Amino acid sequence: MFKDKDFLYIEYVAKIKDTGEVIDTTIEEEAKKANIYNPDKKYGPQLVILGEHRVIKGLEEALYNMNLNEEKVIEVPPEKAYGERDPSKVKILSLGEVKRQGINPYPNMLVRLQDGSLATVKSVSGGRVILDLNHPYAGKTIVYQVKVVKQLTDEKEKINALTERWFGSNPKLTLELSEDKKSVNFAISKEIFLLEDIQMRKFMLAKDIITFVLPESTVSFVEKYDKSVF
Amino acid sequence: MFKDKDFLYIEYVAKIKDTGEVIDTTIEEEAKKANIYNPDKKYGPQLVILGEHRVIKGLEEALYNMNLNEEKVIEVPPEKAYGERDPSKVKILSLGEVKRQGINPYPNMLVRLQDGSLATVKSVSGGRVILDLNHPYAGKTIVYQVKVVKQLTDEKEKINALTERWFGSNPKLTLELSEDKKSVNFAISKEIFLLEDIQMRKFMLAKDIITFVLPESTVSFVEKYDKSVF
Repeated sequence: MFKDKDFLYIEYVAKIKDTGEVIDTTIEEEAKKANIYNPDKKYGPQLVILGEHRVIKGLEEALYNMNLNEEKVIEVPPEKAYGERDPSKVKILSLGEVKRQGINPYPNMLVRLQDGSLATVKSVSGGRVILDLNHPYAGKTIVYQVKVVKQLTDEKEKINALTERWFGSNPKLTLELSEDKKSVNFAISKEIFLLEDIQMRKFMLAKDIITFVLPESTVSFVEKYDKSVF
Repeated sequence: MFKDKDFLYIEYVAKIKDTGEVIDTTIEEEAKKANIYNPDKKYGPQLVILGEHRVIKGLEEALYNMNLNEEKVIEVPPEKAYGERDPSKVKILSLGEVKRQGINPYPNMLVRLQDGSLATVKSVSGGRVILDLNHPYAGKTIVYQVKVVKQLTDEKEKINALTERWFGSNPKLTLELSEDKKSVNFAISKEIFLLEDIQMRKFMLAKDIITFVLPESTVSFVEKYDKSVF
Protein backbone atom coordinates (compact mmCIF):
# COMPACT_ATOMS: atom_id res chain seq x y z
CA MET A 1 0.00 0.00 0.00
CA PHE A 2 1.42 3.38 -1.02
CA LYS A 3 0.36 6.96 -0.41
CA ASP A 4 0.53 10.44 -1.93
CA LYS A 5 4.05 11.70 -2.73
CA ASP A 6 5.58 8.22 -2.60
CA PHE A 7 8.41 7.83 -5.13
CA LEU A 8 8.03 4.56 -7.02
CA TYR A 9 9.88 3.06 -9.95
CA ILE A 10 7.72 0.88 -12.16
CA GLU A 11 8.13 -1.35 -15.19
CA TYR A 12 5.14 -2.00 -17.41
CA VAL A 13 3.78 -3.25 -20.70
CA ALA A 14 0.57 -1.58 -21.92
CA LYS A 15 -1.73 -3.28 -24.43
CA ILE A 16 -5.04 -2.54 -26.10
CA LYS A 17 -7.40 -5.06 -24.50
CA ASP A 18 -9.37 -5.85 -27.68
CA THR A 19 -6.45 -6.51 -29.98
CA GLY A 20 -3.53 -7.32 -27.70
CA GLU A 21 -1.50 -4.64 -29.51
CA VAL A 22 1.39 -3.36 -27.35
CA ILE A 23 1.25 0.47 -27.31
CA ASP A 24 3.80 1.40 -24.66
CA THR A 25 6.40 -0.20 -22.39
CA THR A 26 9.38 0.63 -20.18
CA ILE A 27 11.15 -2.57 -21.26
CA GLU A 28 13.47 -2.25 -24.25
CA GLU A 29 13.15 -5.90 -25.25
CA GLU A 30 9.35 -5.77 -25.22
CA ALA A 31 9.39 -2.59 -27.31
CA LYS A 32 11.56 -4.30 -29.92
CA LYS A 33 9.37 -7.40 -29.92
CA ALA A 34 6.29 -5.21 -30.51
CA ASN A 35 8.00 -3.08 -33.19
CA ILE A 36 7.52 0.13 -31.21
CA TYR A 37 11.16 0.53 -30.16
CA ASN A 38 12.20 4.20 -30.11
CA PRO A 39 15.97 4.77 -29.99
CA ASP A 40 15.44 8.25 -28.49
CA LYS A 41 13.51 6.91 -25.51
CA LYS A 42 15.20 5.96 -22.24
CA TYR A 43 14.01 2.48 -21.29
CA GLY A 44 14.16 1.02 -17.79
CA PRO A 45 12.23 1.60 -14.56
CA GLN A 46 10.19 4.79 -14.71
CA LEU A 47 9.75 7.22 -11.82
CA VAL A 48 6.18 7.78 -10.67
CA ILE A 49 5.40 10.20 -7.85
CA LEU A 50 1.95 9.31 -6.55
CA GLY A 51 -0.49 12.19 -6.85
CA GLU A 52 1.53 13.95 -9.53
CA HIS A 53 -0.81 12.78 -12.32
CA ARG A 54 1.94 12.35 -14.88
CA VAL A 55 0.75 8.85 -15.80
CA ILE A 56 -2.57 7.46 -16.99
CA LYS A 57 -5.13 7.99 -14.22
CA GLY A 58 -6.22 4.36 -13.90
CA LEU A 59 -2.62 3.17 -13.66
CA GLU A 60 -1.76 5.71 -10.96
CA GLU A 61 -4.86 4.80 -8.91
CA ALA A 62 -3.96 1.12 -9.04
CA LEU A 63 -0.42 1.78 -7.83
CA TYR A 64 -1.69 3.09 -4.47
CA ASN A 65 -3.01 -0.43 -3.74
CA MET A 66 0.14 -2.30 -4.68
CA ASN A 67 3.21 -3.30 -2.70
CA LEU A 68 6.91 -3.20 -3.40
CA ASN A 69 7.95 -5.93 -5.88
CA GLU A 70 4.36 -6.86 -6.54
CA GLU A 71 3.34 -7.47 -10.15
CA LYS A 72 -0.25 -6.98 -11.30
CA VAL A 73 -2.39 -6.94 -14.41
CA ILE A 74 -4.67 -3.92 -14.41
CA GLU A 75 -7.56 -3.22 -16.75
CA VAL A 76 -8.05 0.50 -17.24
CA PRO A 77 -11.38 1.53 -18.80
CA PRO A 78 -11.40 4.38 -21.37
CA GLU A 79 -12.59 7.06 -18.91
CA LYS A 80 -9.46 6.48 -16.80
CA ALA A 81 -7.18 6.08 -19.84
CA TYR A 82 -7.43 8.07 -23.08
CA GLY A 83 -11.08 9.10 -22.73
CA GLU A 84 -14.28 7.92 -24.38
CA ARG A 85 -14.75 8.22 -28.12
CA ASP A 86 -16.66 11.33 -29.19
CA PRO A 87 -18.52 10.59 -32.47
CA SER A 88 -18.81 14.33 -33.20
CA LYS A 89 -15.03 14.40 -33.61
CA VAL A 90 -15.32 12.46 -36.88
CA LYS A 91 -15.30 14.96 -39.76
CA ILE A 92 -15.77 14.72 -43.49
CA LEU A 93 -13.57 17.04 -45.59
CA SER A 94 -13.15 17.37 -49.32
CA LEU A 95 -9.95 15.86 -50.71
CA GLY A 96 -9.04 19.30 -52.15
CA GLU A 97 -9.28 20.93 -48.74
CA VAL A 98 -6.98 18.31 -47.18
CA LYS A 99 -4.47 18.58 -50.03
CA ARG A 100 -4.39 22.36 -49.64
CA GLN A 101 -3.06 21.70 -46.11
CA GLY A 102 -0.10 19.94 -47.74
CA ILE A 103 -1.41 16.46 -46.87
CA ASN A 104 -1.73 13.57 -49.31
CA PRO A 105 -4.00 11.34 -47.23
CA TYR A 106 -4.21 7.54 -47.13
CA PRO A 107 -6.09 5.33 -44.68
CA ASN A 108 -4.67 5.04 -41.11
CA MET A 109 -2.32 7.96 -41.73
CA LEU A 110 -1.82 10.17 -38.67
CA VAL A 111 -1.92 13.83 -39.74
CA ARG A 112 -1.42 17.17 -38.06
CA LEU A 113 -3.97 19.72 -39.26
CA GLN A 114 -3.21 23.42 -39.72
CA ASP A 115 -4.91 24.26 -36.40
CA GLY A 116 -2.40 21.96 -34.66
CA SER A 117 -4.81 19.12 -33.87
CA LEU A 118 -3.92 15.50 -34.62
CA ALA A 119 -6.25 13.27 -36.59
CA THR A 120 -6.37 9.79 -38.09
CA VAL A 121 -7.42 9.34 -41.71
CA LYS A 122 -10.23 6.74 -41.70
CA SER A 123 -10.94 6.63 -45.44
CA VAL A 124 -10.35 8.42 -48.73
CA SER A 125 -12.91 7.89 -51.51
CA GLY A 126 -15.09 9.76 -53.96
CA GLY A 127 -13.15 12.99 -53.37
CA ARG A 128 -13.95 12.89 -49.66
CA VAL A 129 -11.74 12.23 -46.67
CA ILE A 130 -13.04 10.99 -43.31
CA LEU A 131 -10.90 12.22 -40.43
CA ASP A 132 -11.13 11.06 -36.81
CA LEU A 133 -9.95 13.67 -34.31
CA ASN A 134 -10.35 11.36 -31.32
CA HIS A 135 -7.14 10.17 -29.62
CA PRO A 136 -6.16 6.91 -31.38
CA TYR A 137 -6.69 5.05 -28.09
CA ALA A 138 -9.93 6.82 -27.13
CA GLY A 139 -12.66 4.33 -26.27
CA LYS A 140 -10.10 1.59 -25.65
CA THR A 141 -9.62 -0.38 -22.48
CA ILE A 142 -5.91 -0.59 -21.75
CA VAL A 143 -4.33 -3.54 -19.97
CA TYR A 144 -1.22 -2.78 -17.94
CA GLN A 145 1.09 -5.50 -16.78
CA VAL A 146 2.91 -3.50 -14.11
CA LYS A 147 5.51 -4.14 -11.42
CA VAL A 148 6.70 -1.81 -8.66
CA VAL A 149 10.44 -2.50 -8.73
CA LYS A 150 11.72 0.10 -6.29
CA GLN A 151 10.62 2.68 -3.77
CA LEU A 152 12.71 5.65 -2.67
CA THR A 153 12.36 6.60 0.99
CA ASP A 154 15.54 8.61 1.58
CA GLU A 155 15.14 12.35 0.89
CA LYS A 156 18.53 12.60 -0.75
CA GLU A 157 17.69 9.77 -3.15
CA LYS A 158 14.40 11.48 -4.00
CA ILE A 159 16.18 14.76 -4.69
CA ASN A 160 18.69 12.94 -6.90
CA ALA A 161 15.85 11.35 -8.85
CA LEU A 162 14.29 14.77 -9.45
CA THR A 163 17.67 16.23 -10.42
CA GLU A 164 17.98 13.52 -13.04
CA ARG A 165 14.49 14.36 -14.30
CA TRP A 166 15.44 17.99 -15.01
CA PHE A 167 19.19 17.78 -15.70
CA GLY A 168 19.60 14.35 -17.29
CA SER A 169 21.37 11.21 -16.18
CA ASN A 170 24.72 12.95 -15.72
CA PRO A 171 23.66 16.17 -14.00
CA LYS A 172 26.44 18.69 -13.42
CA LEU A 173 25.11 19.71 -10.01
CA THR A 174 26.54 18.87 -6.61
CA LEU A 175 23.96 18.36 -3.88
CA GLU A 176 24.40 19.20 -0.21
CA LEU A 177 21.54 18.52 2.19
CA SER A 178 21.82 20.06 5.66
CA GLU A 179 21.34 17.73 8.61
CA ASP A 180 18.10 19.43 9.69
CA LYS A 181 16.85 19.06 6.09
CA LYS A 182 15.90 22.72 5.98
CA SER A 183 18.43 23.60 3.34
CA VAL A 184 19.01 21.94 -0.04
CA ASN A 185 22.06 23.36 -1.78
CA PHE A 186 23.13 22.79 -5.36
CA ALA A 187 26.54 23.90 -6.63
CA ILE A 188 26.27 24.22 -10.39
CA SER A 189 29.25 23.17 -12.44
CA LYS A 190 30.58 25.76 -14.85
CA GLU A 191 30.16 23.29 -17.72
CA ILE A 192 26.43 24.03 -17.71
CA PHE A 193 26.42 27.79 -17.00
CA LEU A 194 25.14 28.39 -20.51
CA LEU A 195 22.94 25.28 -20.78
CA GLU A 196 19.73 26.01 -22.66
CA ASP A 197 16.76 26.54 -20.38
CA ILE A 198 18.92 26.20 -17.27
CA GLN A 199 16.81 28.83 -15.49
CA MET A 200 13.59 26.93 -16.21
CA ARG A 201 15.20 23.64 -15.16
CA LYS A 202 16.32 25.10 -11.82
CA PHE A 203 12.85 26.55 -11.27
CA MET A 204 11.12 23.21 -11.96
CA LEU A 205 13.61 21.20 -9.87
CA ALA A 206 13.14 23.52 -6.89
CA LYS A 207 9.37 23.34 -7.35
CA ASP A 208 9.37 19.53 -7.40
CA ILE A 209 11.61 19.27 -4.33
CA ILE A 210 9.40 21.65 -2.36
CA THR A 211 6.17 20.06 -3.59
CA PHE A 212 7.09 16.39 -3.18
CA VAL A 213 10.06 16.03 -0.82
CA LEU A 214 10.79 18.85 1.64
CA PRO A 215 8.00 21.46 1.66
CA GLU A 216 9.64 23.55 4.39
CA SER A 217 13.10 23.66 2.88
CA THR A 218 14.97 26.36 1.00
CA VAL A 219 16.50 25.20 -2.26
CA SER A 220 19.58 27.18 -3.29
CA PHE A 221 21.51 27.15 -6.51
CA VAL A 222 25.03 28.57 -6.49
CA GLU A 223 27.08 29.43 -9.56
CA LYS A 224 30.69 30.41 -8.99
CA TYR A 225 32.51 32.22 -11.80
CA ASP A 226 36.25 32.79 -11.81
CA LYS A 227 38.71 33.71 -14.54
CA SER A 228 39.00 30.07 -15.68
CA VAL A 229 35.43 30.33 -17.00
CA PHE A 230 36.20 33.03 -19.55
CA MET B 1 45.83 61.29 -16.63
CA PHE B 2 43.95 57.99 -16.59
CA LYS B 3 44.95 54.41 -17.32
CA ASP B 4 43.56 51.10 -18.54
CA LYS B 5 40.54 49.79 -16.62
CA ASP B 6 39.74 53.16 -15.06
CA PHE B 7 36.00 53.69 -14.64
CA LEU B 8 35.00 57.15 -15.87
CA TYR B 9 31.67 58.86 -16.33
CA ILE B 10 31.62 61.33 -19.19
CA GLU B 11 29.22 63.85 -20.70
CA TYR B 12 29.65 64.84 -24.33
CA VAL B 13 28.20 66.46 -27.41
CA ALA B 14 29.39 65.05 -30.76
CA LYS B 15 29.20 67.08 -33.97
CA ILE B 16 30.14 66.64 -37.59
CA LYS B 17 33.03 69.08 -38.04
CA ASP B 18 32.05 70.23 -41.55
CA THR B 19 28.42 71.01 -40.86
CA GLY B 20 28.17 71.48 -37.12
CA GLU B 21 25.35 68.92 -37.08
CA VAL B 22 24.93 67.34 -33.61
CA ILE B 23 24.89 63.54 -34.07
CA ASP B 24 25.05 62.24 -30.50
CA THR B 25 25.04 63.49 -26.92
CA THR B 26 24.61 62.33 -23.33
CA ILE B 27 22.77 65.55 -22.44
CA GLU B 28 18.99 65.45 -22.77
CA GLU B 29 18.63 69.18 -23.30
CA GLU B 30 21.23 69.20 -26.08
CA ALA B 31 19.52 66.26 -27.77
CA LYS B 32 16.21 68.12 -27.76
CA LYS B 33 17.83 71.29 -29.08
CA ALA B 34 19.38 69.31 -31.95
CA ASN B 35 16.15 67.40 -32.70
CA ILE B 36 17.77 64.02 -32.04
CA TYR B 37 16.06 63.38 -28.70
CA ASN B 38 15.22 59.69 -28.25
CA PRO B 39 12.73 58.97 -25.45
CA ASP B 40 14.02 55.37 -25.16
CA LYS B 41 17.59 56.48 -24.46
CA LYS B 42 18.90 57.01 -20.93
CA TYR B 43 20.57 60.42 -20.84
CA GLY B 44 23.12 61.50 -18.26
CA PRO B 45 26.77 60.69 -17.56
CA GLN B 46 27.90 57.61 -19.45
CA LEU B 47 30.19 54.91 -18.08
CA VAL B 48 33.43 54.39 -20.00
CA ILE B 49 35.92 51.73 -18.91
CA LEU B 50 39.24 52.62 -20.49
CA GLY B 51 40.55 49.88 -22.76
CA GLU B 52 37.15 48.32 -23.25
CA HIS B 53 36.71 49.85 -26.73
CA ARG B 54 33.00 50.42 -26.37
CA VAL B 55 33.27 54.04 -27.53
CA ILE B 56 34.72 55.68 -30.64
CA LYS B 57 38.46 54.98 -30.73
CA GLY B 58 39.61 58.60 -30.97
CA LEU B 59 37.41 59.61 -28.05
CA GLU B 60 38.68 56.79 -25.85
CA GLU B 61 42.33 57.60 -26.66
CA ALA B 62 41.80 61.25 -25.73
CA LEU B 63 40.27 60.32 -22.36
CA TYR B 64 43.55 58.75 -21.18
CA ASN B 65 45.12 62.21 -21.32
CA MET B 66 42.40 64.06 -19.45
CA ASN B 67 41.82 64.73 -15.77
CA LEU B 68 38.79 64.56 -13.52
CA ASN B 69 36.40 67.48 -14.14
CA GLU B 70 38.40 68.62 -17.14
CA GLU B 71 36.46 69.61 -20.25
CA LYS B 72 38.00 69.38 -23.71
CA VAL B 73 37.18 69.74 -27.38
CA ILE B 74 38.57 66.82 -29.35
CA GLU B 75 38.77 66.46 -33.12
CA VAL B 76 38.57 62.84 -34.18
CA PRO B 77 39.60 62.08 -37.77
CA PRO B 78 37.59 59.51 -39.78
CA GLU B 79 40.06 56.64 -39.28
CA LYS B 80 39.54 56.89 -35.51
CA ALA B 81 35.79 57.51 -35.81
CA TYR B 82 33.46 55.86 -38.36
CA GLY B 83 36.14 54.94 -40.92
CA GLU B 84 37.10 56.37 -44.27
CA ARG B 85 34.64 56.47 -47.14
CA ASP B 86 34.96 53.57 -49.56
CA PRO B 87 33.83 54.71 -53.06
CA SER B 88 33.28 51.08 -54.13
CA LYS B 89 30.43 50.93 -51.60
CA VAL B 90 28.31 53.21 -53.81
CA LYS B 91 26.02 51.04 -55.95
CA ILE B 92 23.59 51.69 -58.77
CA LEU B 93 20.44 49.53 -58.75
CA SER B 94 17.37 49.60 -60.96
CA LEU B 95 14.30 51.12 -59.36
CA GLY B 96 12.43 47.84 -59.99
CA GLU B 97 15.01 45.86 -58.06
CA VAL B 98 14.75 48.19 -55.07
CA LYS B 99 10.94 48.15 -55.12
CA ARG B 100 10.97 44.34 -55.18
CA GLN B 101 12.74 44.57 -51.79
CA GLY B 102 9.66 46.39 -50.51
CA ILE B 103 11.35 49.78 -50.53
CA ASN B 104 9.93 52.93 -52.10
CA PRO B 105 13.11 55.01 -52.20
CA TYR B 106 13.54 58.76 -51.88
CA PRO B 107 16.73 60.79 -51.43
CA ASN B 108 18.42 60.64 -48.00
CA MET B 109 16.23 57.71 -46.95
CA LEU B 110 18.03 55.17 -44.75
CA VAL B 111 17.10 51.66 -45.91
CA ARG B 112 17.82 48.13 -44.77
CA LEU B 113 18.50 45.83 -47.71
CA GLN B 114 17.46 42.17 -47.82
CA ASP B 115 21.00 41.05 -46.96
CA GLY B 116 20.75 43.06 -43.72
CA SER B 117 23.08 45.89 -44.69
CA LEU B 118 22.15 49.53 -44.17
CA ALA B 119 22.38 52.05 -46.98
CA THR B 120 21.54 55.67 -47.71
CA VAL B 121 19.59 56.54 -50.85
CA LYS B 122 21.62 59.22 -52.68
CA SER B 123 19.33 59.76 -55.66
CA VAL B 124 16.41 58.30 -57.60
CA SER B 125 16.10 59.21 -61.28
CA GLY B 126 15.68 57.70 -64.73
CA GLY B 127 14.61 54.36 -63.22
CA ARG B 128 17.90 54.10 -61.35
CA VAL B 129 18.68 54.34 -57.64
CA ILE B 130 22.09 55.27 -56.24
CA LEU B 131 22.72 53.66 -52.86
CA ASP B 132 25.62 54.43 -50.51
CA LEU B 133 26.54 51.54 -48.25
CA ASN B 134 29.14 53.53 -46.33
CA HIS B 135 28.33 54.44 -42.72
CA PRO B 136 26.53 57.80 -42.83
CA TYR B 137 29.42 59.34 -40.85
CA ALA B 138 32.22 57.61 -42.80
CA GLY B 139 34.82 60.11 -43.98
CA LYS B 140 33.68 62.67 -41.44
CA THR B 141 35.78 64.30 -38.75
CA ILE B 142 33.83 64.27 -35.50
CA VAL B 143 34.22 66.96 -32.88
CA TYR B 144 33.59 65.91 -29.30
CA GLN B 145 33.01 68.41 -26.55
CA VAL B 146 33.64 66.09 -23.62
CA LYS B 147 33.90 66.34 -19.85
CA VAL B 148 35.01 63.70 -17.34
CA VAL B 149 32.46 64.24 -14.58
CA LYS B 150 33.26 61.38 -12.24
CA GLN B 151 35.73 58.58 -11.60
CA LEU B 152 34.99 55.45 -9.62
CA THR B 153 37.86 54.14 -7.51
CA ASP B 154 36.07 51.98 -4.97
CA GLU B 155 35.66 48.35 -6.08
CA LYS B 156 32.16 48.11 -4.70
CA GLU B 157 31.09 51.18 -6.67
CA LYS B 158 32.60 49.72 -9.83
CA ILE B 159 30.76 46.45 -9.29
CA ASN B 160 27.52 48.37 -8.75
CA ALA B 161 28.08 50.27 -12.00
CA LEU B 162 28.54 46.98 -13.88
CA THR B 163 25.48 45.49 -12.18
CA GLU B 164 23.45 48.42 -13.47
CA ARG B 165 24.87 47.84 -16.94
CA TRP B 166 23.54 44.26 -17.07
CA PHE B 167 20.52 44.38 -14.76
CA GLY B 168 19.21 47.93 -15.20
CA SER B 169 18.96 50.87 -12.85
CA ASN B 170 16.94 48.96 -10.27
CA PRO B 171 18.80 45.64 -10.18
CA LYS B 172 17.24 42.95 -7.98
CA LEU B 173 20.60 41.67 -6.78
CA THR B 174 22.16 42.11 -3.36
CA LEU B 175 25.93 42.46 -3.37
CA GLU B 176 28.30 41.27 -0.66
CA LEU B 177 32.03 41.81 -1.09
CA SER B 178 34.31 39.94 1.30
CA GLU B 179 36.92 41.97 3.16
CA ASP B 180 39.83 40.31 1.34
CA LYS B 181 38.03 41.09 -1.98
CA LYS B 182 38.44 37.49 -3.09
CA SER B 183 34.74 36.79 -3.09
CA VAL B 184 31.95 38.74 -4.78
CA ASN B 185 28.56 37.38 -3.82
CA PHE B 186 25.21 38.24 -5.40
CA ALA B 187 21.95 37.11 -3.85
CA ILE B 188 19.36 37.15 -6.62
CA SER B 189 15.87 38.28 -5.68
CA LYS B 190 13.09 35.87 -6.56
CA GLU B 191 11.36 38.61 -8.56
CA ILE B 192 13.85 38.04 -11.37
CA PHE B 193 14.24 34.24 -11.25
CA LEU B 194 12.49 34.04 -14.61
CA LEU B 195 13.91 37.25 -16.12
CA GLU B 196 14.67 36.86 -19.81
CA ASP B 197 18.33 36.22 -20.53
CA ILE B 198 19.17 36.15 -16.81
CA GLN B 199 21.80 33.46 -17.42
CA MET B 200 23.53 35.57 -20.10
CA ARG B 201 23.36 38.67 -17.89
CA LYS B 202 25.00 36.85 -14.96
CA PHE B 203 27.67 35.51 -17.29
CA MET B 204 28.47 38.97 -18.70
CA LEU B 205 28.42 40.65 -15.28
CA ALA B 206 30.83 38.07 -13.84
CA LYS B 207 33.05 38.45 -16.92
CA ASP B 208 33.17 42.25 -16.59
CA ILE B 209 33.93 42.12 -12.85
CA ILE B 210 36.77 39.65 -13.37
CA THR B 211 38.11 41.48 -16.43
CA PHE B 212 37.95 45.05 -15.13
CA VAL B 213 37.69 45.05 -11.31
CA LEU B 214 38.88 41.98 -9.40
CA PRO B 215 40.68 39.50 -11.68
CA GLU B 216 41.49 37.08 -8.84
CA SER B 217 38.02 36.99 -7.32
CA THR B 218 35.27 34.42 -7.47
CA VAL B 219 31.88 35.83 -8.43
CA SER B 220 28.97 33.82 -7.04
CA PHE B 221 25.28 34.08 -7.79
CA VAL B 222 22.87 32.52 -5.31
CA GLU B 223 19.19 31.88 -5.94
CA LYS B 224 17.11 30.69 -3.01
CA TYR B 225 13.75 29.08 -3.72
CA ASP B 226 11.18 28.34 -1.04
CA LYS B 227 7.47 27.58 -1.15
CA SER B 228 6.60 31.29 -1.34
CA VAL B 229 8.02 31.32 -4.88
CA PHE B 230 5.52 28.83 -6.27
